[in-house]
Amino acid sequence: MIAVALAAAGSHDVSEHLLALALVTLGAKLAGELLERLGQPSVLGELLIGIVLGNLVLMGGPDLGEFARNETFTVLAELGAILLLFHVGLESTPGQMMKVGARAALVAVVGVITPMVLGYGVGALMRPRESWMLHAFLGAMLAATSVGITARVLKDVGVLQTRFARIILGAAVIDDVLGLIVLAVIGGIISAAGSGMALSVGAVAKIVLEAMGFLIGALVFGSLASPRLFRTALAFKSAGAVQALALALCFGFSYVAALAGLAPIVGAFAAGLVLEEIHFEGPLRKRERPLHETLEPLIALLVPIFFVRMGMLVDVSSFARGPVLGLAALLTLAAIAGKLACSLVVPKGIPALAVGLGMMPRGEVGLIFAGIGAQLVLGGHPVVDKDAYAAAVFMVVATTMATPPLLLWAVGRSGGLEPANG
Amino acid sequence: MIAVALAAAGSHDVSEHLLALALVTLGAKLAGELLERLGQPSVLGELLIGIVLGNLVLMGGPDLGEFARNETFTVLAELGAILLLFHVGLESTPGQMMKVGARAALVAVVGVITPMVLGYGVGALMRPRESWMLHAFLGAMLAATSVGITARVLKDVGVLQTRFARIILGAAVIDDVLGLIVLAVIGGIISAAGSGMALSVGAVAKIVLEAMGFLIGALVFGSLASPRLFRTALAFKSAGAVQALALALCFGFSYVAALAGLAPIVGAFAAGLVLEEIHFEGPLRKRERPLHETLEPLIALLVPIFFVRMGMLVDVSSFARGPVLGLAALLTLAAIAGKLACSLVVPKGIPALAVGLGMMPRGEVGLIFAGIGAQLVLGGHPVVDKDAYAAAVFMVVATTMATPPLLLWAVGRSGGLEPANG
Repeated sequence: MIAVALAAAGSHDVSEHLLALALVTLGAKLAGELLERLGQPSVLGELLIGIVLGNLVLMGGPDLGEFARNETFTVLAELGAILLLFHVGLESTPGQMMKVGARAALVAVVGVITPMVLGYGVGALMRPRESWMLHAFLGAMLAATSVGITARVLKDVGVLQTRFARIILGAAVIDDVLGLIVLAVIGGIISAAGSGMALSVGAVAKIVLEAMGFLIGALVFGSLASPRLFRTALAFKSAGAVQALALALCFGFSYVAALAGLAPIVGAFAAGLVLEEIHFEGPLRKRERPLHETLEPLIALLVPIFFVRMGMLVDVSSFARGPVLGLAALLTLAAIAGKLACSLVVPKGIPALAVGLGMMPRGEVGLIFAGIGAQLVLGGHPVVDKDAYAAAVFMVVATTMATPPLLLWAVGRSGGLEPANG
Repeated sequence: MIAVALAAAGSHDVSEHLLALALVTLGAKLAGELLERLGQPSVLGELLIGIVLGNLVLMGGPDLGEFARNETFTVLAELGAILLLFHVGLESTPGQMMKVGARAALVAVVGVITPMVLGYGVGALMRPRESWMLHAFLGAMLAATSVGITARVLKDVGVLQTRFARIILGAAVIDDVLGLIVLAVIGGIISAAGSGMALSVGAVAKIVLEAMGFLIGALVFGSLASPRLFRTALAFKSAGAVQALALALCFGFSYVAALAGLAPIVGAFAAGLVLEEIHFEGPLRKRERPLHETLEPLIALLVPIFFVRMGMLVDVSSFARGPVLGLAALLTLAAIAGKLACSLVVPKGIPALAVGLGMMPRGEVGLIFAGIGAQLVLGGHPVVDKDAYAAAVFMVVATTMATPPLLLWAVGRSGGLEPANG
């Protein structure tokens, strides 16, 4: 009974999460190791163990899918995604991104428009009697790239510093931004239509301006603040100042990105991009370990939680419903074809197929889009109904899970990955 | 409005925590730096900034005290305490603990019995008309030592490896265990009395046996599993296997400790104690960084959250009530005198005052005890009523905040801290 009292005092919640952390950490490592021995990236093992854990209920086990939606577990997983993107951003500089900027922007625009058109087409074909707004939403759902999976695979095989990796990551970030803007605009139009009004041009402009404003502001403010931050950290007497100040910047940028209607990971990437540790590496090294090294244990703990959770959210049983499969198959094809179109605008000397494949995963961004669609109401029905949601989840899982092995194959096949010239 | 939709899809919770993490990380570092420049340990700055943040409401600011009780923030803070104790345990081995075991056990027994007797006396003096069970509960509340603060101070000044540090930490752990057993038994008696029955001898025995069973089981199982764990990690192809397996063990032990009715930190300490990295340091170093080094970034991120949160939970305004102050002052005196009595049983050559002072902080354990007392009902009233709770919080804060500067002073004063002979 004292256990009950202790539980009431708050330790119950904690102990539940301790068990989850122990199981996820152990399971992710074992599954990752197994997949690595099979020649696959370990992230695939983390997704698979997540799918198994999340669907134990089908085999009479506990319903852990519910636990995956718990706030604390969600925050721990999101922190993993944020730290991963921060780390990826840290390995690039704004200058290096600029060099691939024009090309990345072109890849990104193709990677947003093609899937949107194809997704619109699938919607018009499969749901001819529904509004154009629903078709447009399905299209928007296919637009965004989830850079987390690709970044992880590129990191696992040690090619983050190559030019094609920068093009993929740069384009994926621009994609995320464009996709979120498209989502914001279409979502706004649907909300306005649902409440009987048209969305004003001013409101659309505000959504777009907020997102653009964040990005420009973050890059300008960050570039000015970065040298000052490292100088301040060097003047600190207490240990760990670089890590603390840099993480505060990362979390702060992620928060402001969310305020501006963007995904927090976009802010984390921007924070990593502007921190130019390289200029301070000498004096820093004398006192403490460089930032990207101290981040590694944090990433090793939190990132597997993100990928295991993404697997846990998959409801395998939903694919047993007939009409879901047709829509799921077509949406997935549109999602794949739409991003492979990016390969067509890649310059010579860059593994074109790897760029297209690297843009393919929808990951958590696709799931967020589908979740938003499930809450938007048009003519009394959710824009994304139960079947469309299951199909969207299938599309997200298929594009996400297919990416690691295919990308690994394409990177290996292209052979000579020239080092970055930045 | 899309921001609202995004919020509804779950990103709101995440962004709230991102803001909190940014502010806590930044605030803790700045306050810690300030205190370090004043010659105090930085943990004191973290507690102080927490008290300021938690009481902004008194100056017309937001009520962050409520946020500090949020599940996610609590779990992040607890993870900090768990990793800190794991790290402390990692720096000792069962053999080294055994060497100071008999002495530590004597210190611990004195450090439990004296505060209990004194606390009982304060209760009988200030609340003569209440049941002996309430007096006993007040006494129990003074028994446990919160090893977190002391471990942090000893770590900050680099004396964790000395013999007196091991005596303090060993005694504090034994104290925690004894205190939790005492709490479990008195809580059980009160619960039984509240429901009109006497607590059976069998039920008391079960509580005690569970706690002892966990400790013996953890040390035996862990000592057998430790070499196997490192050998397995060495055979892994994927990176970070040592960290993943060790953290899984740490979280697993913490969970089982909570199941056995003990504080999770006791399990984390036991996990650290049994992991004998030293035997595997050579081969491990070749492939990855040693475990206690990879833990440092995790500790640097999460431990300040724990101490800031402890400060945030302090309600400064409660001390404005008259009768609270008398009880608070007497309880605090009893708490301090009770632990300083430990100094009397310290062998020659060990800084006796430092041992007594190191046992002084009640920290989160004291707060958990007070919280449990507030939920136990005796004769229609909570065992720990509003005034007693405020007094208990004062006692916890006073003993906790006074420890770092006093301990620092006592350690410095004792001068020659001989290195550990283990």
